[in-house]
Amino acid sequence: MSSIDLNSDLGEGFGRWTLGDDEAMLRVVTSANVACGFHAGDPSILRRVCASAAQLGVAVGAQVGYRDLAGFGRRHIEMDPAELVDELIYQIAALHGIAGVEGARVSYVKPHGALYNSAASNAVTAGAVTEAVALFDRTMPVLGLAGSELLLRAEADGLTAVAEAFADRAYNPDGLLVPRREPGAVIHDPDVVARRCVQMATEGTVVAIDGTTISVAAQSICIHGDTPGAVEMAHAVRRAVDDAGVALRAFTAVP
Amino acid sequence: MSSIDLNSDLGEGFGRWTLGDDEAMLRVVTSANVACGFHAGDPSILRRVCASAAQLGVAVGAQVGYRDLAGFGRRHIEMDPAELVDELIYQIAALHGIAGVEGARVSYVKPHGALYNSAASNAVTAGAVTEAVALFDRTMPVLGLAGSELLLRAEADGLTAVAEAFADRAYNPDGLLVPRREPGAVIHDPDVVARRCVQMATEGTVVAIDGTTISVAAQSICIHGDTPGAVEMAHAVRRAVDDAGVALRAFTAVP
Amino acid sequence: MSSIDLNSDLGEGFGRWTLGDDEAMLRVVTSANVACGFHAGDPSILRRVCASAAQLGVAVGAQVGYRDLAGFGRRHIEMDPAELVDELIYQIAALHGIAGVEGARVSYVKPHGALYNSAASNAVTAGAVTEAVALFDRTMPVLGLAGSELLLRAEADGLTAVAEAFADRAYNPDGLLVPRREPGAVIHDPDVVARRCVQMATEGTVVAIDGTTISVAAQSICIHGDTPGAVEMAHAVRRAVDDAGVALRAFTAVP
Amino acid sequence: MSSIDLNSDLGEGFGRWTLGDDEAMLRVVTSANVACGFHAGDPSILRRVCASAAQLGVAVGAQVGYRDLAGFGRRHIEMDPAELVDELIYQIAALHGIAGVEGARVSYVKPHGALYNSAASNAVTAGAVTEAVALFDRTMPVLGLAGSELLLRAEADGLTAVAEAFADRAYNPDGLLVPRREPGAVIHDPDVVARRCVQMATEGTVVAIDGTTISVAAQSICIHGDTPGAVEMAHAVRRAVDDAGVALRAFTAVP
Repeated sequence: MSSIDLNSDLGEGFGRWTLGDDEAMLRVVTSANVACGFHAGDPSILRRVCASAAQLGVAVGAQVGYRDLAGFGRRHIEMDPAELVDELIYQIAALHGIAGVEGARVSYVKPHGALYNSAASNAVTAGAVTEAVALFDRTMPVLGLAGSELLLRAEADGLTAVAEAFADRAYNPDGLLVPRREPGAVIHDPDVVARRCVQMATEGTVVAIDGTTISVAAQSICIHGDTPGAVEMAHAVRRAVDDAGVALRAFTAVP
Repeated sequence: MSSIDLNSDLGEGFGRWTLGDDEAMLRVVTSANVACGFHAGDPSILRRVCASAAQLGVAVGAQVGYRDLAGFGRRHIEMDPAELVDELIYQIAALHGIAGVEGARVSYVKPHGALYNSAASNAVTAGAVTEAVALFDRTMPVLGLAGSELLLRAEADGLTAVAEAFADRAYNPDGLLVPRREPGAVIHDPDVVARRCVQMATEGTVVAIDGTTISVAAQSICIHGDTPGAVEMAHAVRRAVDDAGVALRAFTAVP
Repeated sequence: MSSIDLNSDLGEGFGRWTLGDDEAMLRVVTSANVACGFHAGDPSILRRVCASAAQLGVAVGAQVGYRDLAGFGRRHIEMDPAELVDELIYQIAALHGIAGVEGARVSYVKPHGALYNSAASNAVTAGAVTEAVALFDRTMPVLGLAGSELLLRAEADGLTAVAEAFADRAYNPDGLLVPRREPGAVIHDPDVVARRCVQMATEGTVVAIDGTTISVAAQSICIHGDTPGAVEMAHAVRRAVDDAGVALRAFTAVP
Repeated sequence: MSSIDLNSDLGEGFGRWTLGDDEAMLRVVTSANVACGFHAGDPSILRRVCASAAQLGVAVGAQVGYRDLAGFGRRHIEMDPAELVDELIYQIAALHGIAGVEGARVSYVKPHGALYNSAASNAVTAGAVTEAVALFDRTMPVLGLAGSELLLRAEADGLTAVAEAFADRAYNPDGLLVPRREPGAVIHDPDVVARRCVQMATEGTVVAIDGTTISVAAQSICIHGDTPGAVEMAHAVRRAVDDAGVALRAFTAVP
């Protein structure tokens, strides 16, 4: 593997409130998962992020979520699947229209927060996401957890499934993420994260929490932009990947 | 004049709440102003209305409004014009995406409520609406009050301006609507409304409240769908127009 | 048993949207479960309902729900219990303040929709509801499903638990409601509903769907106000209860 | 004058989003204007701020605003005054209930953002605010701009009017604030701000932008907590006031 994509959740402020440093992160990543207004993001924020992404050649993806500003889309909502499909189309379309004004376009879809988790393990939720994508534009890839229900369903539905890995999260030997509440689940040392990232990109493997080396077949690596030190971490990762001779490239064509 | 368009505000429920009878009104009108989710309308409602409109050959327009569910978009909000532009693009795009799923498309834009009133008289608001339309798709007509700031601005910006009249509202001799709070401002007799509609469509005139006949240059007539007796009134108007040999036809091409 | 309370969900409009006929239902019931603004109800609606309730001597209860206007509080949201407690206190307090302006007061709490269902079977949700009540005013009764986790927990926490039954719903022999999706689950004949109500009030029993007579220990009977024919049904129930010599009386003191 | 109150807008985060450092500011101010959920603030934030305020002996005021999370309450909304009254009572009551759980109580009301500005100059808005306070608890003071319509109306209605001044804002010779868009309108030097604060507290005067000394009759000084360097500025002000021998004391009794 000689190229990798770096993705990050961006555009997650709302009105007076900001979250992370979108501009700085857009200079690191190759794909921007842009919030669509339901869990975060207002139209002006969306437009600003899309404008910068277009200028910097970063791919724009629709980071769709539950309608839950108060919970930032992190609370599972037991929705009627048909209504969820419609809410997802609405979000993708709204961002797509905003992006178009800035010469960008929505080129993939990634669920956010509780929707991400539900779509990873629940076939009904996964099916709602893939139905929304198929209805809006079936050439758009779906970005999700490697091995998840969502990606299985995307492939079954004839969509393009793109797997992502997490450079700053510990893995169990079975390839699943170590839950956040367990010790060592999140890796804070930028050098370690950068090395893991390089290994993922060049060898397709990662060292699990028990020391064994396991396979991680990911076309994209997710970097968090909303934690303290996030931008520095992101730069460290990008530098290390560059130094290792790995090309940084979005997994979709950027207009 | 041998043809006229009838438009009505539709899709204005939200979740558990309904408003008017969308299905019945879609069998009367030729253009549906579909709410976009900011003052009313949720994605599933939008999709249902678009599906029926597509099936019945009714044109779909984006009925954009202020972000104000509690006020139903009827309260003026002093917004930064640039933010308003972005909010309008977001709404138009969201509806357009939903419509596309049902084989329809957004073929015009009409502001709702307080935004309609502000855009009719305030050049800054009018400019925000036309900027949003121009950025999203400058071939889309803008539907508004005859003689309004909005239509003047649309023309100045090279957009297609479409004027509407109100068959159930009394006019002053100067061509302005009699304010709702004044006696006789709203006409409730279906036969009278139907006759006024025919006169508008065939002669381009209406009898003002002082008995004089004045010119009303409108390509579309707005019919309200959310009042008691609205559907019956709408049918009466449609029958009268049919009987007068006036063709009922949307002012935009229906896909 | 010589007296019974009739309760109904009221104040469930929002802005331009109405639901049911609050004024008519307030002339039938003895307790009004008033929405608090999170799943339905805006401050002006709350105040109008409280004013009428005060005038008619109807008890006011806080009908608390999830923050979900789009879902009308009918979708389960997996919330942090501590945050749920705070959201419930907020709602109870807001309604209490509005009620106070009209000479009323919140005299009990009843969860709505998905929160009602979750609190009936889930100990964590039940505990969040009782914690909120205990923190706000531990003299306030909790109204819920007979035999539910919520009422068990309320009693365990030293609160007053008040059980309700449903006159228009079929019961299984084990005392549980027949699920809505099964045939015969909802009873539409006003006379039948009225007779069941009288039997519940006078004998504390109901005829289950298999024809056996079972015990239903309820201090209040819930009547729905938002379905077609709801007001007529409510009047039939009230007349039948009156004719049977059963006193209609709120289970809490009305100021 | 031997004592002064320092007030600041707190509790203005929402869900995942934070604004300013509430805990740090609570160690400086004597009165906390706590957001009530309509322009900012969720129930859990409100409760945390009230808990800390109670512990630190800081007075809690209801910082009421327009229902506008997207605009942070900074956009004027042309509301029906009667509806505004109800929305204000709702907010005050909700915060009051939350505060009560933590041994605090709402002891004054201060409008926020666009409502503050409108109530300062518009008699109808001012009357809506004072009507809400009078209905909820007419012993609660109203905190507002010295010389504003709001304070005049509060006095006329028999309420307690408390005037505030701004230590970090330049004044015109006529006692009005220099508009933010003009040069020199905002003072950034903590030492200068601290000295102005002391002069306001000890002499009741301030040096206007033209160098003349004018009278500023304020019982409270507003300190901003949401700008970079806000906490340092606040500490500088507090130290300077302490050093000048001026007592820092809330203008209302703290429970």
